[in-house]
Amino acid sequence: MSGKKIVIALGGNALQPAGEELSAETQLRALEKTCRSLSEICALGYRIVIVHGNGPQIGRIVQVEEEAEPWTSPMPFDVCGAMSQGYIGYQLQQMLDNENLLRGIDVPVSTVITQVVVDRDDPAFLHPTKPIGAFYSPCAARRLAAEKGYEMAEDSGRGWRRVVPSPRPIKIVELDSIRELSEKGVVIACGGGGVPIIEGSAHGYRGIPAVIDKDHAARLLADELDADILLILTGVEQVCLDYNTEKQKALSRLDPAQAEKYIEEGQFAPGSMLPKVRSAVDFVRNKPGRKAVITSLDRALDALNGTAGTVFEG
Amino acid sequence: MSGKKIVIALGGNALQPAGEELSAETQLRALEKTCRSLSEICALGYRIVIVHGNGPQIGRIVQVEEEAEPWTSPMPFDVCGAMSQGYIGYQLQQMLDNENLLRGIDVPVSTVITQVVVDRDDPAFLHPTKPIGAFYSPCAARRLAAEKGYEMAEDSGRGWRRVVPSPRPIKIVELDSIRELSEKGVVIACGGGGVPIIEGSAHGYRGIPAVIDKDHAARLLADELDADILLILTGVEQVCLDYNTEKQKALSRLDPAQAEKYIEEGQFAPGSMLPKVRSAVDFVRNKPGRKAVITSLDRALDALNGTAGTVFEG
Repeated sequence: MSGKKIVIALGGNALQPAGEELSAETQLRALEKTCRSLSEICALGYRIVIVHGNGPQIGRIVQVEEEAEPWTSPMPFDVCGAMSQGYIGYQLQQMLDNENLLRGIDVPVSTVITQVVVDRDDPAFLHPTKPIGAFYSPCAARRLAAEKGYEMAEDSGRGWRRVVPSPRPIKIVELDSIRELSEKGVVIACGGGGVPIIEGSAHGYRGIPAVIDKDHAARLLADELDADILLILTGVEQVCLDYNTEKQKALSRLDPAQAEKYIEEGQFAPGSMLPKVRSAVDFVRNKPGRKAVITSLDRALDALNGTAGTVFEG
Repeated sequence: MSGKKIVIALGGNALQPAGEELSAETQLRALEKTCRSLSEICALGYRIVIVHGNGPQIGRIVQVEEEAEPWTSPMPFDVCGAMSQGYIGYQLQQMLDNENLLRGIDVPVSTVITQVVVDRDDPAFLHPTKPIGAFYSPCAARRLAAEKGYEMAEDSGRGWRRVVPSPRPIKIVELDSIRELSEKGVVIACGGGGVPIIEGSAHGYRGIPAVIDKDHAARLLADELDADILLILTGVEQVCLDYNTEKQKALSRLDPAQAEKYIEEGQFAPGSMLPKVRSAVDFVRNKPGRKAVITSLDRALDALNGTAGTVFEG
């Protein structure tokens, strides 16, 4: 393989058809479409590393485990993350194998279960913000907080949910393996942002209940692999200013310094467009000649050709 | 890294403390001990590829999913297998990282989610034999058979269980990636024998409800990687003739031709010692100079030094 190295961050809409029940069957169907686009990118000779989200999937696994509690010990949160990596990675590699086969592309595709180290003193641990799993009544939420020590928060008027910290990724444990495999094929890694672990003093690595933002993990991975392009795929074709207002304005290019200004103005929603813009800016700033693109799955190819999406250059 | 290439098949007792509840916590504790032995083998300079079983783990995941059915679509069987690879692989690589760190061994350890192709016409599909998950009353078993089309079978007087086919592995899809990573580090692959898939004519790979014997998968992987040694770790220190009788006799060596004779005599229990002896014999027969060893985790190092276990040489 030759060609540019590209890290692709896949958002929830690449894994799940909008408005359908969250299940392995619906996910497989969404991934078929997603992998058609990914396979076309393979066909252009790009060396691809894929980082996918796992918010709804880990929420579902955690909930299924909790409901089973009367008769079995539920899996801890970190293990649920690793399970979601196995689940999504398996379906993704199978569908991409199938799409590549149709196009006569012979490239190994593999999923590496990935641990990502976070700082145990990350301020995120003081203020858990990432909602996970089921919605509860205020009363049930109080009970869960008391019985299990969960942090609970009201989520956009839809009910109470467990919230976990979302610390910043600082080290990808399996980086050497991911780099090695990315030289010759497609790698799926840092699924769901990676399983968050901390480095204990005495006992080495230890998993913790947290969710790392997958766009931040993709940025770190792209940095470490010295990728040429960070491609962040989401539900909209371009980054917008004054999003969802009458003044909404889509951007085809975004200068990093200008982006910083918009970030400060609060133009981008936390947990949604903000981590994407933040990751794109950080990636292109860390080395000259790099490119980051935010766009939708449907426009991914056009965006690589420079005719769609929002492009960031250093 | 230099040194001999060794494929290690880990049995259930390496993952689970005997007699304790099946949970992520108890498994982590068992893996700590297991990884102490594996790290000692790393320290000797062997290049290690690990294949682990997943019988109890996939059974538990399938059962947790089924119990959740009233409110969510249960994960299909193949996805449960991929989830078990993520679960076990994650804990295994974390514990081995930690043990290697203690010993100052700097070797990447990674888990590759593995699909293994089986023949859709494998006779195993006509006679499912591998029991999975919970025990049911005869009445509940009849209901499951009728409602879900499960094959149910009575298991050793303990109740009725779902049984799935156990077809032979014929191709490891992620082989190139496993080979690549095994040149420089420890790889965990073909977990639970691999996620069983078939090659459909039109749609490419597709997962199926089945469990591949992990010893057979380990043999195939050892063959394909051209490993020097296949080390099968189980609950007993040596292969025995007339096992569990007054005439029981442990074997320190077993000639392949002699082993075939014992197999024909029915000396080895199907689903237990038989696939291990079968795999060991096939591996050493496929190329001169190879060695296979069956022993317990505690004696693994001694067995590699030739002072424990049952050794097969071609």
